[in-house]
Amino acid sequence: MQGIKAIEWANDRVRLLDQTRLPHQEVYLELDDHLQMAAAIREMRLRGAPLIGIAAAYGMALAARHIQASNMQVFLAQLRPITEALASTRPTAVNLSWALERMTLVAEAAADPQVAQEALVAEALRIHQENAEANRRLSQHGAQLIPAGSAVLTHCNTGSLATGGSGTALGVIRAAWEQGKLSRVYHSETRPLLQGARLTAWELARDGIPATLIADDAAGFLMRRRDAIACVIVGADRIAANGDVANKIGTYTLAVLASEHAIPFYVAAPTSTIDLNTTSGDQIPIEERSAEELTAFADVAVAPAGTEALNPAFDVTPHRYVSAIITERGVVRDPYAKSLPQLFQQEGVRHA
Amino acid sequence: MQGIKAIEWANDRVRLLDQTRLPHQEVYLELDDHLQMAAAIREMRLRGAPLIGIAAAYGMALAARHIQASNMQVFLAQLRPITEALASTRPTAVNLSWALERMTLVAEAAADPQVAQEALVAEALRIHQENAEANRRLSQHGAQLIPAGSAVLTHCNTGSLATGGSGTALGVIRAAWEQGKLSRVYHSETRPLLQGARLTAWELARDGIPATLIADDAAGFLMRRRDAIACVIVGADRIAANGDVANKIGTYTLAVLASEHAIPFYVAAPTSTIDLNTTSGDQIPIEERSAEELTAFADVAVAPAGTEALNPAFDVTPHRYVSAIITERGVVRDPYAKSLPQLFQQEGVRHA
Repeated sequence: MQGIKAIEWANDRVRLLDQTRLPHQEVYLELDDHLQMAAAIREMRLRGAPLIGIAAAYGMALAARHIQASNMQVFLAQLRPITEALASTRPTAVNLSWALERMTLVAEAAADPQVAQEALVAEALRIHQENAEANRRLSQHGAQLIPAGSAVLTHCNTGSLATGGSGTALGVIRAAWEQGKLSRVYHSETRPLLQGARLTAWELARDGIPATLIADDAAGFLMRRRDAIACVIVGADRIAANGDVANKIGTYTLAVLASEHAIPFYVAAPTSTIDLNTTSGDQIPIEERSAEELTAFADVAVAPAGTEALNPAFDVTPHRYVSAIITERGVVRDPYAKSLPQLFQQEGVRHA
Repeated sequence: MQGIKAIEWANDRVRLLDQTRLPHQEVYLELDDHLQMAAAIREMRLRGAPLIGIAAAYGMALAARHIQASNMQVFLAQLRPITEALASTRPTAVNLSWALERMTLVAEAAADPQVAQEALVAEALRIHQENAEANRRLSQHGAQLIPAGSAVLTHCNTGSLATGGSGTALGVIRAAWEQGKLSRVYHSETRPLLQGARLTAWELARDGIPATLIADDAAGFLMRRRDAIACVIVGADRIAANGDVANKIGTYTLAVLASEHAIPFYVAAPTSTIDLNTTSGDQIPIEERSAEELTAFADVAVAPAGTEALNPAFDVTPHRYVSAIITERGVVRDPYAKSLPQLFQQEGVRHA
């Protein structure tokens, strides 16, 4: 995935690949303030928990540049509604509030508004850079779990279009491919917004990794085929302290199917996706989106007018279905209530 | 569903509702021969195992009217390739070969070609009528399994658009609704051809039954909600002698999820869908359809050009997941290897 940057800070603006136009058009948006960024997040022109975090940080950096303030008190007062506007764009991915908290701490530590403005840009770039590095590390850890010559199944998009680097689950898949271990990737189309069919297919094709698209409801069929896949590997939008995983709708179904077929089910995510303040998955807010995502497609009505729909964007997979969580600091397993906090004790992290 | 006839014999032709145009256009096709019928089945202008059986029977009746034969030997020789052409349209639903066998026996018993032509029309009408009656009966049996005040989840379309009457799973749902037992129907959109979003939504709206559409991959989310649904109820394309059930892709996934949540999983089908000659689900041929059904959506390209896809139209649910099979002759449970054959011993059936 050389050369593709889902998001980039350039000339004091943000250059953003509009993912709603992929795979058919590569359209880049130039964003100048946090309102444009909040709209882009809400409209899912970018998506993926780590990328949302990076985007929110850049959104604060953009907004800070427009603040006219004579002292830090005024600066921080003006920064607060900006942070809140970005925080309210989407509820489930914890990387969003994680990044905003990091940015806020940096602003609060600044001596004056001009220093703060520069520090916020630097911190956003650092969050982006750290995520790329986290991807590299977790991908190497994860690739060790993939047996040689195997096919894997993944869901949604967790690659360069969802992160600041090579990806989480898709980063692991890329590393396994580079190591010559991978025979094929099966990827679900991921209704309703088809991130698998549109985005993952696009990334895998660019990398020349053999890939097969399936309907979400064909995952059971695939797993019943003996030895069809060696493992399921997905990303995460928020991981609770007990190891429960919120991720794209359909993840829980895949976890149950994997369990039923004794297929390992792996979750790959940077530690910024782990939320030790959330005790269990029951506390994770699940975004419900509009019925139109199901009743129409590409502006073509599918269902009859007036059809009601339930459209949760995420689901929660209880930790007992999760074989391992792959992070940049290593691979942890159940009991997650113990192993997840240990990840943060190993190194001093401002997140912990 | 008063007034909607998915298929009808009228003026020595077949009038067929083109289901590929639903729910937005009600277009009826007039068919005059078996080649048109074979094309209609293959192009899925009609679908649903019982309706495919009825359509194949009408296809033979149409074709027979065009045969010029001076004796039965010539007539039957001309009938054979017609039967084969219809039999080869789709592989999974056993109702197709079941209906063609019934029609062939009727032709073979006829004294002369003219008698055969009339007898074939009469037999096709009888198959249609019997299916409508089977729907009525199995719907009453099935409704007894639905607890009062409950919501159910169904998959694909199993209503008037899939049968010769009120439907199988949807027939049960209609009967439960008429009895005041049903609070709501959740129905999956059923990728790739969206029979749930297009057809089931249309039928339920016409009947005024409260309904909620979900993405296929939201079924796990729904079942994890405590008491959200009382049971899952689906149709079948072929039921093997051991109770294994071939049905629309995604059914197996729903069965595994239902099992995981201790939710009853019911299959509703006429006895013509039971194939005692097929020992287990492993022997059921599973149709694989074109990648384009997944790589495009509503004629809009979705995935990048060249995306490979695996697109099985059906899957097999092992009998251990099936809580009960609902037929017009009653409800049977495991051990199906015993209970299914008994259905055919109760009454003399030409099928057994």
